[in-house]
Amino acid sequence: MPPTFRLILEYDGSDFAGWQTQAEGQRTVQGTLSAALAEIALGPVRVVGAGRTDAGVHAEGQVAAATLETRLDAATLGRALDAKLPGDVAVVACALARDGFDPRREATGKLYRYAVWNAPRASPLRRRRAHHVALRLDVAAMREAAASLVGRHDFASFQAAGSRVSATVRTLARVEVAGDPGAEIHFALEGDGFLRHMVRNVVGTLLEVGLGRRGPGSMSSLLAARDRSQAGPTAPACGLTLVRVDY
Amino acid sequence: MPPTFRLILEYDGSDFAGWQTQAEGQRTVQGTLSAALAEIALGPVRVVGAGRTDAGVHAEGQVAAATLETRLDAATLGRALDAKLPGDVAVVACALARDGFDPRREATGKLYRYAVWNAPRASPLRRRRAHHVALRLDVAAMREAAASLVGRHDFASFQAAGSRVSATVRTLARVEVAGDPGAEIHFALEGDGFLRHMVRNVVGTLLEVGLGRRGPGSMSSLLAARDRSQAGPTAPACGLTLVRVDY
Repeated sequence: MPPTFRLILEYDGSDFAGWQTQAEGQRTVQGTLSAALAEIALGPVRVVGAGRTDAGVHAEGQVAAATLETRLDAATLGRALDAKLPGDVAVVACALARDGFDPRREATGKLYRYAVWNAPRASPLRRRRAHHVALRLDVAAMREAAASLVGRHDFASFQAAGSRVSATVRTLARVEVAGDPGAEIHFALEGDGFLRHMVRNVVGTLLEVGLGRRGPGSMSSLLAARDRSQAGPTAPACGLTLVRVDY
Repeated sequence: MPPTFRLILEYDGSDFAGWQTQAEGQRTVQGTLSAALAEIALGPVRVVGAGRTDAGVHAEGQVAAATLETRLDAATLGRALDAKLPGDVAVVACALARDGFDPRREATGKLYRYAVWNAPRASPLRRRRAHHVALRLDVAAMREAAASLVGRHDFASFQAAGSRVSATVRTLARVEVAGDPGAEIHFALEGDGFLRHMVRNVVGTLLEVGLGRRGPGSMSSLLAARDRSQAGPTAPACGLTLVRVDY
């Protein structure tokens, strides 16, 4: 049975159609990794990621399991893979995992960061990694709303429209807002699991609070509603980074 | 006589062949601005920049003079221009200048920043704006060498090879090195003027000091040599940003 390696990956998601290979001809992180590993492997390659990041979403610490026949040790495999990858994806670490390692099911937590550039004019140097909000945000109001999302809640109101996942209870250990208008404002969300689009829907809703379109005390009733249509819009992918996956 | 406007510009230089229009068919910042202004102006357009940044070099505060016939006031012109520009260049400010304003000759100083990502592995999320140095840099040694460049010196050793500029004396008010290995290291260079490639040649030389290939006390003799071949290599364009131009 071929060995499984645990990879930690950084990527700039701007030019990827997300993590997961879906339609033919799309450039995905999973597909790019599989193709590079196929050049190294002595047989078939299987790559599974911890989080299926959407198109345009970045990662500093995505975790993947790569199963392949090779005579290389983990460190050498990591360097060989890194050398074959394009500039927008890199191997941060590579270690031997135990057989059957499943990075998605075994993850106990994830940390995401969402970056907003809050200034009247757009910033070309930040445009690939921060969402531009021109109107001045009320950070204190967003912080108050964010605090009421911490804990164990049913996040059905924040899952992607049309999603058919029925187990929508998750626990958020941390929902923090840092920074000031006129510069970058960063949202940090840490939890045991996230529904599809959940981070971007939470951020989109907190931005409505920051713009005064929604009260900072309205999160409890929004959670209770279990209704996606009552939450804010999905914040754009470019601002989101998967920072870390915990096991 | 058409009025002249003073523009402050931010751009991501990655996909530009520099500031200045040279060969036909190259995408330059000056050409992109001129084309956008031509759609607004009631006659011919003239654009002059304070610093002719090279291909791949970024700017947070490039200054340009735009001379054009228009009925728009400065603020409206700035917004109209910004709306016509692609995502990798933006107008930070637009004000009416006095006739004959020459942003290059009248500049009394410039501030540049150079970013290095100093870690064993490349960082996809930083690759467009920081130069990757894999070996660990000695920041204290670079700081010592940098300090001896402050002041009024003949920088002939640091000017672009083949440059025919003979007045090579410049005054640097600040050459600072901040940050630590394992993260980003930033060089700040502030002076009354810079020779072609001077910032990148100074940084390339300081990086040799940081790698232990050149002593931190060797800058005085290097300045005295007035010989480009004795300085270090030109650091890559991607790490360089023109932060500010002073008048």
